[in-house]
Amino acid sequence: MNERIKRVLANLSAMGLDQALICDPMSIKYLTGYYTFPHERFFALHVSREATTLFCNKLFPDATGHADHLVTFTDTDDPLPLVAAACDAGVALGVDKALPARWLLPLMDMGAAAGFKVASDAVDATRSVKDAAEQQLMREASALNDEAMAWLAAQVREGVTEQRIAEDLLGEYRSLGSEGYSFDPIVSFGATASDPHHEPDGTVFHRGDMVLFDVGCLWKGYCSDMTRTFFTAKPTAHQLEVYDAVRRANEAAAAFVRPGVEFAQIDRTARAIIEDAGYGPYFTHRLGHQIGMEVHEPGDVSSSHHEPVQPGQIFSIEPGIYLPGDIGVRIEDLCIVTEDGCEIINHYPHDVCVLDV
Amino acid sequence: MNERIKRVLANLSAMGLDQALICDPMSIKYLTGYYTFPHERFFALHVSREATTLFCNKLFPDATGHADHLVTFTDTDDPLPLVAAACDAGVALGVDKALPARWLLPLMDMGAAAGFKVASDAVDATRSVKDAAEQQLMREASALNDEAMAWLAAQVREGVTEQRIAEDLLGEYRSLGSEGYSFDPIVSFGATASDPHHEPDGTVFHRGDMVLFDVGCLWKGYCSDMTRTFFTAKPTAHQLEVYDAVRRANEAAAAFVRPGVEFAQIDRTARAIIEDAGYGPYFTHRLGHQIGMEVHEPGDVSSSHHEPVQPGQIFSIEPGIYLPGDIGVRIEDLCIVTEDGCEIINHYPHDVCVLDV
Repeated sequence: MNERIKRVLANLSAMGLDQALICDPMSIKYLTGYYTFPHERFFALHVSREATTLFCNKLFPDATGHADHLVTFTDTDDPLPLVAAACDAGVALGVDKALPARWLLPLMDMGAAAGFKVASDAVDATRSVKDAAEQQLMREASALNDEAMAWLAAQVREGVTEQRIAEDLLGEYRSLGSEGYSFDPIVSFGATASDPHHEPDGTVFHRGDMVLFDVGCLWKGYCSDMTRTFFTAKPTAHQLEVYDAVRRANEAAAAFVRPGVEFAQIDRTARAIIEDAGYGPYFTHRLGHQIGMEVHEPGDVSSSHHEPVQPGQIFSIEPGIYLPGDIGVRIEDLCIVTEDGCEIINHYPHDVCVLDV
Repeated sequence: MNERIKRVLANLSAMGLDQALICDPMSIKYLTGYYTFPHERFFALHVSREATTLFCNKLFPDATGHADHLVTFTDTDDPLPLVAAACDAGVALGVDKALPARWLLPLMDMGAAAGFKVASDAVDATRSVKDAAEQQLMREASALNDEAMAWLAAQVREGVTEQRIAEDLLGEYRSLGSEGYSFDPIVSFGATASDPHHEPDGTVFHRGDMVLFDVGCLWKGYCSDMTRTFFTAKPTAHQLEVYDAVRRANEAAAAFVRPGVEFAQIDRTARAIIEDAGYGPYFTHRLGHQIGMEVHEPGDVSSSHHEPVQPGQIFSIEPGIYLPGDIGVRIEDLCIVTEDGCEIINHYPHDVCVLDV
């Protein structure tokens, strides 16, 4: 039994559970090494102290060797009695938070277990703490993203549209060896950056616009995610003040991270600097999110998350100030929590940068 | 109360249900006109004979006016007691097949209803029969796709890659006024077409390769989907035989469609022709799928679907023959079931076409 599954079983045990049914394809990949995207078809992993059992449609790629037992079925079979047979009907079953009603209700009707309880936390907590191999892939993904940011800065020229740069980035990521985007890139010129979730559109760049790139790529199944904000003319005092507040918030939060501090305290550290600069109401989102095989993983860096951070967790630090109709500034890096602090895995600088366009 | 909701309530009633909780965002859009993609946040519509109630996070766009009642909440509120309050605890609740365990189990624990039953069929059956306005949008979406197919045929040239054409198609769809792809396009050169789900890659076109395009665009929220297979040199007798079997299968199935015939009989009609031509084992998928706001909607055109077709239903007819390592041919059109037959809404010809490359 692999180390990851042992950690999940220990977490389940702490919840009073001895078995669970997991259906999140990324969690199944994480625990077994086997990945398929099942669309509407049934796909699940049952875990217990005795064995792991993978349930796969015969149309999926062969999953032999990825779990102790492999149970296959066709589109005309009902897989749920097979799942019920693998469950211990005498004890409760932890279920994936995403398990849909079309499978959960029949399993309940069959009496597959003595109670059903959402148990995704047991898997999510395991995935949250990245092992050494995962940390290395995350460093490599972010190194590619640093290179992509330099390429992006070089694409800014009079008349180009946000959409053009956003779409061309895919080719750049591919030529860097990446599998592609880890999320749809954000490219914002001028006032469009004051919407933190702006989607790149036909907005045309004009010299003097500030430019925001929030981008990430996939590298061997792991995600990068970084934001930088550039100037394209001598910054005004107002622009510099906003930029400086965001930069200081980013760097203060990074300096604060160490095992044992709460996620909420990290958010507070960054937010206090932006509030002190007078821009508190314009920092309209959480400080960050965990990241790994998925760009947003459970457990955010926000005022409502009071758990302590642990070595091996990886999350974004991305303070921002959004002044509607005026400017938007965000500076985002990923960090790995270490034994005594954190390692920032993006190396593209934070300095004020005026692009020569 | 709008006509669509009345149809859903009638379908629920036939299932012995008086209320349902719907969480599929496309179904909610269909029934209320309001669309948001909620990611991990709670979003649902409760329907009963008395009223419709929409449950929205305050971060979503304002939904005022889209249902009889609007219930809003923030990220720090638990929406499930609000849902329970809207339900009639004395009768069973129909639930969306996709309602995840993290919401279903708490609603059950709260005793929100006297039983829970998957009831998506009531909505899916309603969505399946397209009204006149939807049929017109589907015609328009397919007309754009016909134009795109002509553009695609003109992109084939020595040395181009599948990926290049697939990615450039997005710009062509946009310039035709469409919102973009309805699904990731399939572009296959030569033997890659013998995998019916081939993803466009770096495969380079060489004169003589057969070329398969399976593409679709979104038009005002409705999907097109069409496949054509082209020659780029004088076809061999073997290639013509395969092409001709697929074309005859497509056209025979289309000629067979009329209200009352079973979906399975339509599949059989096409499959019999391919079997008679000796290629039965190489037609490895169902004949088609329903389509509308989503490219694959419930109720496929397959041997296991024995319901009769009804006027207003729209589905694909897409027979194919896949000879591993050799060639793949598929010809796909969309049809609308009419009172006495069907209307094919793709007009790009089926004739053998040798592109001048």
